Amino acid sequence: MDLDPLDHRAESPLYRQLFEQIAEQIRSGKLALGQKLPATRELAGLLGLNRATVAAAYEMLESGGLISGQVGRGSFVTARRAEGRGVDWDVHLSRTEAAAMTPAANPVTYGKPLISFAASRPADSLFPLEDFRAACAAVLTRSDLPAILQLGSPSGFEPLRRHLLEGARRDRLAQPGDDLIITNGCQQALDLIGRVLLRPGDRVAVEDPVYTGLKNLLVGMGVRVVGVPVEAEGIDVAELRRVLDREQPRLLVITPNFQNPTGTTLRSLSRQTLLDIALSAGVPVIENDPYGELRYHGQSLPALKQLDHSGGTVLLRSFSKVSFPGLRVGWALGPKALIGRLRQAKEASDLHTDQLSQAVLLEFARSGRLEAHRLRVLQAGAERLAAALSACGDCLPPGTRWTQPEGGMNLWVRLPKPLDAAELLPAAQKRGVTFLPGRYFEVSRRDPGALRLSFAGLPAGQIRKGLEILGRVAAGEQERAAENRQPLPAMV
Amino acid sequence: MDLDPLDHRAESPLYRQLFEQIAEQIRSGKLALGQKLPATRELAGLLGLNRATVAAAYEMLESGGLISGQVGRGSFVTARRAEGRGVDWDVHLSRTEAAAMTPAANPVTYGKPLISFAASRPADSLFPLEDFRAACAAVLTRSDLPAILQLGSPSGFEPLRRHLLEGARRDRLAQPGDDLIITNGCQQALDLIGRVLLRPGDRVAVEDPVYTGLKNLLVGMGVRVVGVPVEAEGIDVAELRRVLDREQPRLLVITPNFQNPTGTTLRSLSRQTLLDIALSAGVPVIENDPYGELRYHGQSLPALKQLDHSGGTVLLRSFSKVSFPGLRVGWALGPKALIGRLRQAKEASDLHTDQLSQAVLLEFARSGRLEAHRLRVLQAGAERLAAALSACGDCLPPGTRWTQPEGGMNLWVRLPKPLDAAELLPAAQKRGVTFLPGRYFEVSRRDPGALRLSFAGLPAGQIRKGLEILGRVAAGEQERAAENRQPLPAMV
Repeated sequence: MDLDPLDHRAESPLYRQLFEQIAEQIRSGKLALGQKLPATRELAGLLGLNRATVAAAYEMLESGGLISGQVGRGSFVTARRAEGRGVDWDVHLSRTEAAAMTPAANPVTYGKPLISFAASRPADSLFPLEDFRAACAAVLTRSDLPAILQLGSPSGFEPLRRHLLEGARRDRLAQPGDDLIITNGCQQALDLIGRVLLRPGDRVAVEDPVYTGLKNLLVGMGVRVVGVPVEAEGIDVAELRRVLDREQPRLLVITPNFQNPTGTTLRSLSRQTLLDIALSAGVPVIENDPYGELRYHGQSLPALKQLDHSGGTVLLRSFSKVSFPGLRVGWALGPKALIGRLRQAKEASDLHTDQLSQAVLLEFARSGRLEAHRLRVLQAGAERLAAALSACGDCLPPGTRWTQPEGGMNLWVRLPKPLDAAELLPAAQKRGVTFLPGRYFEVSRRDPGALRLSFAGLPAGQIRKGLEILGRVAAGEQERAAENRQPLPAMV
Repeated sequence: MDLDPLDHRAESPLYRQLFEQIAEQIRSGKLALGQKLPATRELAGLLGLNRATVAAAYEMLESGGLISGQVGRGSFVTARRAEGRGVDWDVHLSRTEAAAMTPAANPVTYGKPLISFAASRPADSLFPLEDFRAACAAVLTRSDLPAILQLGSPSGFEPLRRHLLEGARRDRLAQPGDDLIITNGCQQALDLIGRVLLRPGDRVAVEDPVYTGLKNLLVGMGVRVVGVPVEAEGIDVAELRRVLDREQPRLLVITPNFQNPTGTTLRSLSRQTLLDIALSAGVPVIENDPYGELRYHGQSLPALKQLDHSGGTVLLRSFSKVSFPGLRVGWALGPKALIGRLRQAKEASDLHTDQLSQAVLLEFARSGRLEAHRLRVLQAGAERLAAALSACGDCLPPGTRWTQPEGGMNLWVRLPKPLDAAELLPAAQKRGVTFLPGRYFEVSRRDPGALRLSFAGLPAGQIRKGLEILGRVAAGEQERAAENRQPLPAMV
């Protein structure tokens, strides 16, 4: 019996490692039905293990029905190999598209503390833990706590749903005939909309570059993603008009405020034009707005949902960026007919959104704690954004360009040629800095020098330090590239 | 201008009702662009409203851009009707299948307290609120609270995931090469499995009758649902063999313990046979087991996942039935390759499951409170089941048959011909009792006399009272049917 060496430092105990190796050999047919296993003493000697360890592994194999011990004779394989009477998962899993995953925000750290620009999420050091605990405490003393813990409605926890709908009416976001459904963040709202409105082969117009989670979702649904370039002031509306004419997409998904990944914001006039173009083409506009409440300076602009009185726009918002992303609560506001169908899709998908978190977030919002937290987040965000912008100017190589966000969590950097952000990444990580190269966000526009800097999670000092390191890595790479470009000496 | 009377008792204020009516008339084109609206004083007089109410409605219309006031001239419609430059939602929504919804558990009550046998969910009067609060309090003092509130992993909250996987290994449910993912209850596990393994037009074998939420999910995916009859001792294995041969389904989904809706349990020997049949046909077995831990009497049977060493079975479990369904936490245990793909689908679907509830349920489980609660639930469940079974015998018409569950939340009643459970329902509800007629659970076997009695949520006294009422309604209906069957007198 060939066995790999066991890992004495692994979390899994030795007897389990041994069990898994032998079980795997039985399943793969390497150990055949009826074959005799070495005696425990013998195997322990061969592997340098305690005999009790081997005995424990054999016991697990026996109780799993894989081997059987016979007194005085030893242990024999009693299970057949899986093949022939088993499920071929490779075949089963090859029938649908595997959605790409978003890369992990925290890669190998080489033992150093890592300055990560890789995740578009709030700083957990700013979480108001005492306020959160107070909101939980208030929920736990509610007389309707049993109803919160009981099965709920696919539309959402009704007190929260009403709170959000009333707020949307006050803010003139809700039009007559609109309704609201609570979802597990904006991601699930996008998913449910896709399930209800899209079929494989459909086209959907999105910004290019675009949030990876949207691109992956659509590709996983078998939808063709059509990119419309994002410029300094948001999506290129003239190009959008051409795309709508040429591609006849089923949907337009757009993030007008502090777009992920570019941080850009669509100008007021362009908003009206975009609506005119999309709606006159009969194309629903999905306004994905997780960052809208995080404006650090400049004037607030009307939501597309506010400007559209024809009922063709669906607004998606969330508690995730302005408070706690670990609590998965967002919502979609749109015409009743659509929201009714989203409700059916939501029930099929997971019955309803977690009610404990809905109740806690309602309390957090109603008590004024959410707004107090938002004001603190705005202040920190303004400082961090300013730090990021000034460090870009001070640290990155000449010729680098970057966007000028007025809020949100991200800015978009384009390093000068011939720098390639993906190629820089390993060197940057070795020196303690990470980020996401632009290619994760690309639809069809290639831009190897591009990268996303998510600044909201880092204090100003870390942002400066991270960009200094990134600047040095980029400069070093430029030098190397220049050297390599030296013409070769003539061969003589 | 024609307006419907306003509802003075509605929650929505009068000015808003008025605003919505006029806005709707503008959107529908009934009020055309440029048309003059009556003066506020005039309209107030016509409708018997305060003038300020009308003025408030006009102000909303104006700030919504629908009308415009001109000093000394009055107010004019400034928005065009939606048609022609809008989204036709009917067309957009007609392109995909609308999933049927599960009927509401609490219909019109006619002002009476309703005895509801309609929901397969735990009794919230049994929720251990103090223990739940203590578990929350423990989570709120954890040093990793910020990480709980921060964005998490699509695989689940790692401490909970590890706890469940270790438990599954201890219970010999996890095989070598298995992995575990946390989902929003069993419903989302089924959804993710469908997304990863199924394509429209595929066939899936399920029990007949079957859990409505599974049937609706599959139909919504464009999948053909093939029913295999459930008898007194679970799915008919001989018929399953024929269905696998004839229909070549892509999957088998089965609830071996206390199946919803019938309450039946698959015998031990049939479990092995079922596995042999399905796996030798290469068909993955999805073992949907939300009720397995709620056995009130009789001997525990091995899970299919325990019996299958070939890696062809996926086990789904949940905290919902044994503790709090409002916290949406379940899990899937199966081969690594599948779980990896479920993880991708999970990320696309909603990033990850709510972490606050995962942390609270972990604490609830680890502290022993879950097991203490389960023991109390078992005791109450045993009493309720006994009450339901004896009341069926005492109260329902002769010729009625019902299943003999040993656990779970449901039993299946078949009234004698010509009774039709769906036809009885309105009369039963008028007398204060509700239930779900069998047709909600039907796949292809028609059984008009069948109904599901979900007994776990009701105290024994209520169960008895509810069945007495149901018995009287059924008996009354039998009499009427007998009278109607009287031959008509000869026409002379």
